[in-house]
Amino acid sequence: MNDAVKRPSVGALAAPLVDALAADAGRLRLKVSTGPLGCRLIDAGAAVPGGLEVGRRLTEICLGGLGQVSIVPSVAALSAWPHSIQVGSADPVIGCLGSQYAGWALAGGEDDPNWFALGSGPGRATAAVETLYEELGYRDASPDVALVLETGAPPPESIVRKVMEATGAAPERITFLYAPTQSLAGSTQVVGRVLEVALHKVHTLHFPLERVIDGIGLAPLAPPAPDFVKAMGRTNDAIIYGGRVHLFVTGPDGDAETLANDLPSRTSRDYGLPFAEVFQKFNGDFYAIDGALFSPAEVVVTAVESGRSFRGGALAPELVDASFS
Amino acid sequence: MNDAVKRPSVGALAAPLVDALAADAGRLRLKVSTGPLGCRLIDAGAAVPGGLEVGRRLTEICLGGLGQVSIVPSVAALSAWPHSIQVGSADPVIGCLGSQYAGWALAGGEDDPNWFALGSGPGRATAAVETLYEELGYRDASPDVALVLETGAPPPESIVRKVMEATGAAPERITFLYAPTQSLAGSTQVVGRVLEVALHKVHTLHFPLERVIDGIGLAPLAPPAPDFVKAMGRTNDAIIYGGRVHLFVTGPDGDAETLANDLPSRTSRDYGLPFAEVFQKFNGDFYAIDGALFSPAEVVVTAVESGRSFRGGALAPELVDASFS
Amino acid sequence: MNDAVKRPSVGALAAPLVDALAADAGRLRLKVSTGPLGCRLIDAGAAVPGGLEVGRRLTEICLGGLGQVSIVPSVAALSAWPHSIQVGSADPVIGCLGSQYAGWALAGGEDDPNWFALGSGPGRATAAVETLYEELGYRDASPDVALVLETGAPPPESIVRKVMEATGAAPERITFLYAPTQSLAGSTQVVGRVLEVALHKVHTLHFPLERVIDGIGLAPLAPPAPDFVKAMGRTNDAIIYGGRVHLFVTGPDGDAETLANDLPSRTSRDYGLPFAEVFQKFNGDFYAIDGALFSPAEVVVTAVESGRSFRGGALAPELVDASFS
Repeated sequence: MNDAVKRPSVGALAAPLVDALAADAGRLRLKVSTGPLGCRLIDAGAAVPGGLEVGRRLTEICLGGLGQVSIVPSVAALSAWPHSIQVGSADPVIGCLGSQYAGWALAGGEDDPNWFALGSGPGRATAAVETLYEELGYRDASPDVALVLETGAPPPESIVRKVMEATGAAPERITFLYAPTQSLAGSTQVVGRVLEVALHKVHTLHFPLERVIDGIGLAPLAPPAPDFVKAMGRTNDAIIYGGRVHLFVTGPDGDAETLANDLPSRTSRDYGLPFAEVFQKFNGDFYAIDGALFSPAEVVVTAVESGRSFRGGALAPELVDASFS
Repeated sequence: MNDAVKRPSVGALAAPLVDALAADAGRLRLKVSTGPLGCRLIDAGAAVPGGLEVGRRLTEICLGGLGQVSIVPSVAALSAWPHSIQVGSADPVIGCLGSQYAGWALAGGEDDPNWFALGSGPGRATAAVETLYEELGYRDASPDVALVLETGAPPPESIVRKVMEATGAAPERITFLYAPTQSLAGSTQVVGRVLEVALHKVHTLHFPLERVIDGIGLAPLAPPAPDFVKAMGRTNDAIIYGGRVHLFVTGPDGDAETLANDLPSRTSRDYGLPFAEVFQKFNGDFYAIDGALFSPAEVVVTAVESGRSFRGGALAPELVDASFS
Repeated sequence: MNDAVKRPSVGALAAPLVDALAADAGRLRLKVSTGPLGCRLIDAGAAVPGGLEVGRRLTEICLGGLGQVSIVPSVAALSAWPHSIQVGSADPVIGCLGSQYAGWALAGGEDDPNWFALGSGPGRATAAVETLYEELGYRDASPDVALVLETGAPPPESIVRKVMEATGAAPERITFLYAPTQSLAGSTQVVGRVLEVALHKVHTLHFPLERVIDGIGLAPLAPPAPDFVKAMGRTNDAIIYGGRVHLFVTGPDGDAETLANDLPSRTSRDYGLPFAEVFQKFNGDFYAIDGALFSPAEVVVTAVESGRSFRGGALAPELVDASFS
């Protein structure tokens, strides 16, 4: 039934959100500046305070305008951490995987060989350098390119050039929004990936993406930590041990039931420790960690063709506490 | 004290919301088309995916711009169904009864005699063919007419003509928004009637409507079901067994206390079974069901002239589970 | 790190919110009129119904556009009072203390010597007659002045003149928004001070304000009461016994821990009775009440430089019930 509906342009939908964020820089304590080759830089938490609301708005930008993001009271089991980020999308495949997923590895050139960040947000879909885009059958042609970078350092010229070349965008139409995971905005926008993480594991489990027709979830805001590993650990734990997602899928009940069983984080071999400890256990080798761990703690999967709902996993408040404290 | 304030036009207030929904068709997976005689059709869940957010926006349109509608985490007792729709209105009588109530029975003419839907939303107040409008003392003169239809089939020409004649509106100023109860948007917008259902029973109980000065409530999002009776049952159960409403009323405490006692669904003879079973018990004769059943599970009524609050009913999570599972 | 960011103008940020509220007068049941010397008056709850949503919007205006305010379901412990107001600010010092705090005592002149109200909102920062502004190092130069008054009577000419003189604003650029504590909007906007009250006590405790970089909190909506003392008591109790705030601060852990211990209301000598009873115990002498009582029931303080969080206080639902019932 999707055929009736034209695919939206995440870049075009995000552009007014990016411009509005820039216009609100004063009240949201951001800094907007002109970067290499005339691109626009928005510091959302590196040398500026930023804040939780900035993180919420970064999440909406990451989703390419295809999501609704709000800060809400946490569920009772997690009330020690009073507020959560809630994320819904009526187009979770394009919004979360086609735009929000931090899938574009950007490494600096000779001008700054140590610079590295994972690029997230609608600009990925214009570049479409990741093989994922072939699987999604989606590509954006927006002349406005926005990329969210989970880093404290603005991109060097070599990165701007790489993005120009991959997207074909004029540099003045390219915006980089950056905030380290250790900042309020950075931490919030990473926890705001609770639905995207679910979609990514859905994909890994080979559940056909086009059968996910709606999704909504929430996870507790992780207090930022100054140490990168700890900060990253907390944002992961917010989702792995504190995230709850409800997906609506088409297709047979058996598939939905299998998905509900396989999707939650507790199916992973590495489930049960705060993420920072898992990371250290593997000597900081991210790719040695079981990918199945990256998923919400608890899921509900509703099979809309039968109306039945299937459940898997459970919130683990004690592990959230162990991580956040 | 209402005299000081001019009555709003629900049609005029809803018009920008309808236009915004149409403009967002791509990202919300709707379909906008031109229907009989040049009217505008918005398919929100029949041949398109639509979604929860569409249902939220349909609810705001149904309320004629007089309500605030948000998707929020469910209360602890209902956390098996993680998200709820919250509806508030500072003008609940006009917003809920004058606009949102699905009170205009529309039956197709010779061109499609089997077509039938209950019309909801601001266009009802322009037509004002229901006797309710005399009781409300309200009528709208908006040239823009929007009607929300709980159906999977767009209206035939005979319906468009009927609406033109009843409202005096030009066909190109008439918008029909339709989604079946079995769709995500349809299910959401029906659960979004939690406050309206309370207002309707307030009216049935002969509590003077002008004494209801504010109201807010919420109910869990019902997972849609493919069977119409089951889908309708779930949306009713979301309210009857899972809805909670807080009303603010003027007048004596005794009246508020009586209202709190009489308003909840459990005062009904037919309380205690999932609605689909009640419906089947009466062989599908909707009008044989006790009207007192259509009400939120739990109410708080605050008498603003004394400041005292009265309570009635209780959430019944086990009946919500029985219905939604 | 604040140096990089220019201070926002609370008057300029609030102006479109005030204009939007005036434009929505019909649907929000407000009354807009022209007052003495041509100023604009918005009655939000005196001779008009107003409502909860009006109170939410008054809160955003009070915060000078520097806050995010939403009505949300109450936490489980307070579910007898189903809805709460949630307030966040990425600039809580300027938003809450520089704008929202009801710190400008306005007493009528010869034309109405009995008129008195505490002025709140962005106009305070343009007047900057309070010594607080020297401590904040902040002053606004907005030509648009908005003041929220917790009173049922519009200001007399002498007050308009006083505001003109203190702010230098043309009278037609001055808006007074007023609602008594006994109204729905008035009650809501006072409970909407849950974060501001925390900030004010932070200041009283001599914790350096510039070290509070973000804050978010919520408190249950207090049902209004016709008696002023009772109404005021309830709005205070909503915060003192039902409020929960999360602050993010810079600086050493020891300071954050001390703040978490000292900030909650239960550190006060006068903690433990509904506020109206405390007030009567002191024969209505507001200034005899221990100032330490004015604070949220429960706080979390996250020290962002270590990532550790500290806690103090606890919700006291039985005292909320005693007050609201």
